[in-house]
Amino acid sequence: MKMLLSSRQILAAAALAVLVFVGYPAYGQDDPLPSWNDTPTKKAILNFVGSVTKEGGPDFVAMQERVAVFDMDGTLVPQKPVPIALVPVMAEIRDAVARKPFLGDKPAVAALLKRDEDALHAAGQQGVLDLIAVATDGKTTDEIAQNVQPLLEKENHPKFDVPYAKTVYQGMRELLALLEANGFSNWISSGSPVLVTRELSMEMFDIPPERLIGSNAGTKFDERDGRSVLVFDGTINAINDGAGKPVGINLAIGKRLLVIGGNEGGRGDVAMMRWSKDRNGPSLQLLINHDDAAREYAYAESDGYSLDAARKYGFQVVSMKDDWKTIIGK
Amino acid sequence: MKMLLSSRQILAAAALAVLVFVGYPAYGQDDPLPSWNDTPTKKAILNFVGSVTKEGGPDFVAMQERVAVFDMDGTLVPQKPVPIALVPVMAEIRDAVARKPFLGDKPAVAALLKRDEDALHAAGQQGVLDLIAVATDGKTTDEIAQNVQPLLEKENHPKFDVPYAKTVYQGMRELLALLEANGFSNWISSGSPVLVTRELSMEMFDIPPERLIGSNAGTKFDERDGRSVLVFDGTINAINDGAGKPVGINLAIGKRLLVIGGNEGGRGDVAMMRWSKDRNGPSLQLLINHDDAAREYAYAESDGYSLDAARKYGFQVVSMKDDWKTIIGK
Repeated sequence: MKMLLSSRQILAAAALAVLVFVGYPAYGQDDPLPSWNDTPTKKAILNFVGSVTKEGGPDFVAMQERVAVFDMDGTLVPQKPVPIALVPVMAEIRDAVARKPFLGDKPAVAALLKRDEDALHAAGQQGVLDLIAVATDGKTTDEIAQNVQPLLEKENHPKFDVPYAKTVYQGMRELLALLEANGFSNWISSGSPVLVTRELSMEMFDIPPERLIGSNAGTKFDERDGRSVLVFDGTINAINDGAGKPVGINLAIGKRLLVIGGNEGGRGDVAMMRWSKDRNGPSLQLLINHDDAAREYAYAESDGYSLDAARKYGFQVVSMKDDWKTIIGK
Repeated sequence: MKMLLSSRQILAAAALAVLVFVGYPAYGQDDPLPSWNDTPTKKAILNFVGSVTKEGGPDFVAMQERVAVFDMDGTLVPQKPVPIALVPVMAEIRDAVARKPFLGDKPAVAALLKRDEDALHAAGQQGVLDLIAVATDGKTTDEIAQNVQPLLEKENHPKFDVPYAKTVYQGMRELLALLEANGFSNWISSGSPVLVTRELSMEMFDIPPERLIGSNAGTKFDERDGRSVLVFDGTINAINDGAGKPVGINLAIGKRLLVIGGNEGGRGDVAMMRWSKDRNGPSLQLLINHDDAAREYAYAESDGYSLDAARKYGFQVVSMKDDWKTIIGK
């Protein structure tokens, strides 16, 4: 029996064949990070990638160990005015309340619809459970998932005036491509629900759905009209933030990672960065600093927790203001 | 800056370059499943792989959708006399009891050390928690993980008289290789603890640690001598069996899968097979039937649950007795 080579395989083979004969320009003569200014940050990134991919060099890392994990909101896309996953979640909640108005009486739902952050916070753990219950409202995981991408392509980001699906930071898009071209597997570890994030990751970041780690609600196996489905069971399985992030990474990947990207502003990424830094061997932690009020947003933790950690543990801080020529690409 | 091509990349490129010019023998002129008898089962597998990889054909499936998940114990390796992960877990427990004899007083620990299955069952959920607590006994995840592979290479399987690390079913080894050669990603979904299974999967099955789904205990971020670590927190996070298997697959991969392999004997794989069967488009479910008392073990569920499900839902049953020439390879 003979199997056909797919066109994608042929292209990959042809590209690799060319590389064998002409050498290996992992990113050619061109600057792999054109929207990054020529600052020490850019140099640190390029040096790191060069050193871990230099076979025979002291810092060489085998390809199967080249795994990079990035936070999403505030690291790959803007976190303001709302995390991107909230766009489809809000739409589901508005839709459920329109169908069943009494659902709007739950304190957390009312708070979210009014964007009342204090009331939302006051609703606590029960509030999160209520929001999940209303947003999912008896739907299967398949039904929830299929609504995500269309909503993100339809609704525009208020500041950048492009659909949410197009709000990837240009510098991070280039960094993801650089890593991938150098044999890395890119992953996302986000506080947002994984059911939502994996529906946007391939299109937005070229990261396939099996490389998503995120917060998640419990599901259970069930039947609908004789067909097997998964439905939500009313529990919270994991909140993927702060000290939960190294736990989630270890559960999914089982090792300390070579590259971690996160951001200051929510204290959520320091633990996974520390856990990477304590890897045996080289590693790189990038902390995006939201210091560009003019082109993006300027916000900081009141106690400077993440930036302090960067100094203490040796994370590389990325200044959006100084290190990036462009925020959102065309 | 110039990046070097690793020797592995050069080999891959050369192999692909050759394939472009000479055609694409996904498994050459040779039989890709030499240890399978020429039965309808083998034919069904080869036909399925041929049809989903035939570009332009009605059943063609893009490479990123070609994901195969296999149960481990009883599907890729013998489940008897004990699941393979129990070998290092038993060693950890014996070691802990030797250091702290009072730990042996816990009913579940005493039952396990005496191999008293009834008493083990009677210890229930608390028993499982006790076993985890004693097996981990304050160790970090790194410390537990590093002991697994050496133990499996040292201890021999009582029936096959090779180290446990060498007990892969030859037919399944060939099937994994066939799938991989045809663009599939192979994963494991096992009831055994993922902390253990991912330490043996690369060496035994050529499956990297990030493609392991399994039962797992809760961990928490902590510090030891200023270094960040993960330690067990005394909770059970997931029991990856039965109806929990599609839940675990969906959490890790986020889609219904093209190929599922499982076995009769423990009722544990039917739910994930059904969830795959209800995929939109082609799919293949393989159920290993332990019907070879002479060469392996013969055991069956008292009510024939899994074999009944195979008939009802159209899973392909693999008879170890009739379909396999060899059980464990040399």
